[in-house]
Amino acid sequence: MKVLLCGDFDPGEEAIWRAELEGALPQAQWLDLAAARAAPAAVEAAVVANPPPGSLQGLPALRLVQSLWAGVDRLLDDPTLPPGVPIARMVDPAMNAAMAETALWAVLALHRGFFRYLEQQRREQWQPLPQRRADEVAVLVLGQGAMGGTVSERLRGQGYPVTGWRRSDGSAALWAALPQAAIVINLLPLTPQTRGLLDARFFAVMARGSCVVNLARGAHLVDADLLDALDRGQLEHAVLDVFAVEPLPAGHPYWRHPRVTVLPHAAAATDPRSAARVVADNLQRLARGAPLLHLVDPRRGY
Amino acid sequence: MKVLLCGDFDPGEEAIWRAELEGALPQAQWLDLAAARAAPAAVEAAVVANPPPGSLQGLPALRLVQSLWAGVDRLLDDPTLPPGVPIARMVDPAMNAAMAETALWAVLALHRGFFRYLEQQRREQWQPLPQRRADEVAVLVLGQGAMGGTVSERLRGQGYPVTGWRRSDGSAALWAALPQAAIVINLLPLTPQTRGLLDARFFAVMARGSCVVNLARGAHLVDADLLDALDRGQLEHAVLDVFAVEPLPAGHPYWRHPRVTVLPHAAAATDPRSAARVVADNLQRLARGAPLLHLVDPRRGY
Repeated sequence: MKVLLCGDFDPGEEAIWRAELEGALPQAQWLDLAAARAAPAAVEAAVVANPPPGSLQGLPALRLVQSLWAGVDRLLDDPTLPPGVPIARMVDPAMNAAMAETALWAVLALHRGFFRYLEQQRREQWQPLPQRRADEVAVLVLGQGAMGGTVSERLRGQGYPVTGWRRSDGSAALWAALPQAAIVINLLPLTPQTRGLLDARFFAVMARGSCVVNLARGAHLVDADLLDALDRGQLEHAVLDVFAVEPLPAGHPYWRHPRVTVLPHAAAATDPRSAARVVADNLQRLARGAPLLHLVDPRRGY
Repeated sequence: MKVLLCGDFDPGEEAIWRAELEGALPQAQWLDLAAARAAPAAVEAAVVANPPPGSLQGLPALRLVQSLWAGVDRLLDDPTLPPGVPIARMVDPAMNAAMAETALWAVLALHRGFFRYLEQQRREQWQPLPQRRADEVAVLVLGQGAMGGTVSERLRGQGYPVTGWRRSDGSAALWAALPQAAIVINLLPLTPQTRGLLDARFFAVMARGSCVVNLARGAHLVDADLLDALDRGQLEHAVLDVFAVEPLPAGHPYWRHPRVTVLPHAAAATDPRSAARVVADNLQRLARGAPLLHLVDPRRGY
């Protein structure tokens, strides 16, 4: 089977992926974009990581587009995607675990005041804070797919009362759950329905002094509304891993805000070692005509 | 039963303890130091939190000294402690959970580079770091009592390979385990045998680029040796909750060191709500002549 491999890899990253994929599926032949263009009729599958728009055009035998990234919002934005070809998301257990680690670290830090202690250290200030138990810190997790589910389970394991919300639960359930939470974690897929969900109205319904953790997409959140909610004291702290523009531009108010923690889109990377096995599994399913895993529903957008 | 309650409480803290203790054991009569001095022959038990040296002298009916704090090194340093009166440590499930939260937060932060990301934020630098799996980050936990055991269990639950060491395992086992660990967490009791254990030799045996987390006592660690190990790059980062002198003095090099995280002895406070029930249980055992819990062995020092 000839497979196109292309995407927005960092320098050196494509070689790592290629080595892992070749190891996981030695019988496949992995082509870069130039090689695929030279023999387009032979390409049966594409393994992609936000490929340049247009990359998947003109491949008449293409039967599967397998994303290496969990979020497919940028991939689906390409109007030249070949219609009718199944698209699969990455569901990588190692990435789910990494996401749960980041969420747990953020919740522990917010619950136990560790961001404030780090701020105190800069001022050489020694001031222990009141200590709450985990069961007194309610967490709301938006998104209950593979990632949101893993995050919720790990937080419950540490004693936090966790409420999960998915879009199919409806808006009324969200507005009812929001004021109950001390910490809201966003792990929703980015779709037209979830874009801009974390806005002034959303923050106003949250409990005064609560915190937000955005681990999904920058476009879920309205930056000006968040800064306003923080500066008015409505929100206590924000942990942000994703931004409308990445890397976060120099001089952006988030960089210097004492109650915003900026991560460089590092909450959870796909792990080539485990993800290559997920890709190999789906390509073998394609080869033997078995049902494909983790398919995107283009109407839902994820 | 008349019980002396005294210690180094913060302002307002003694009233909270008294309320919780009265709620947990209404049949007891709680005396402060002045009231106990006025009627010393009636005092059967003392519930103490690092009481002023000499406070426990001249109480002829005293049959139990119950500490509210888990660490009894300062209490045992009082040469006027009445000989032969049993001393009980605090073993508070809520404090064990709080300690596990702090240890887990520190391990997650060290494993996933979050201290480095916070440092990057100050420089407006966007640089994702390589992502390791939890099973690639070996943790060594020194101390395997109630706290060390809870910490080890929670870390294992997140996928970290954890080795536990207690002093009875012997020095050879320690020196063999040290170079295997990416992160070493100190939760030992402070005794003459463990004082100064974390010194130049200890840090030299640790793996290059590994990290230390001290959640026990400042006197376990030789500050000059730690700073030297950090500055030579032998150690990558230190998370310190406890110090030789507390509060950590102004101008101490730890405050400004970019690879030292300073917490204000806040890793785990005794929780008056659950600890009062532990105290009530032991006082009721005293009253009915049942075996007392959590007794200190003065020869071991904990």
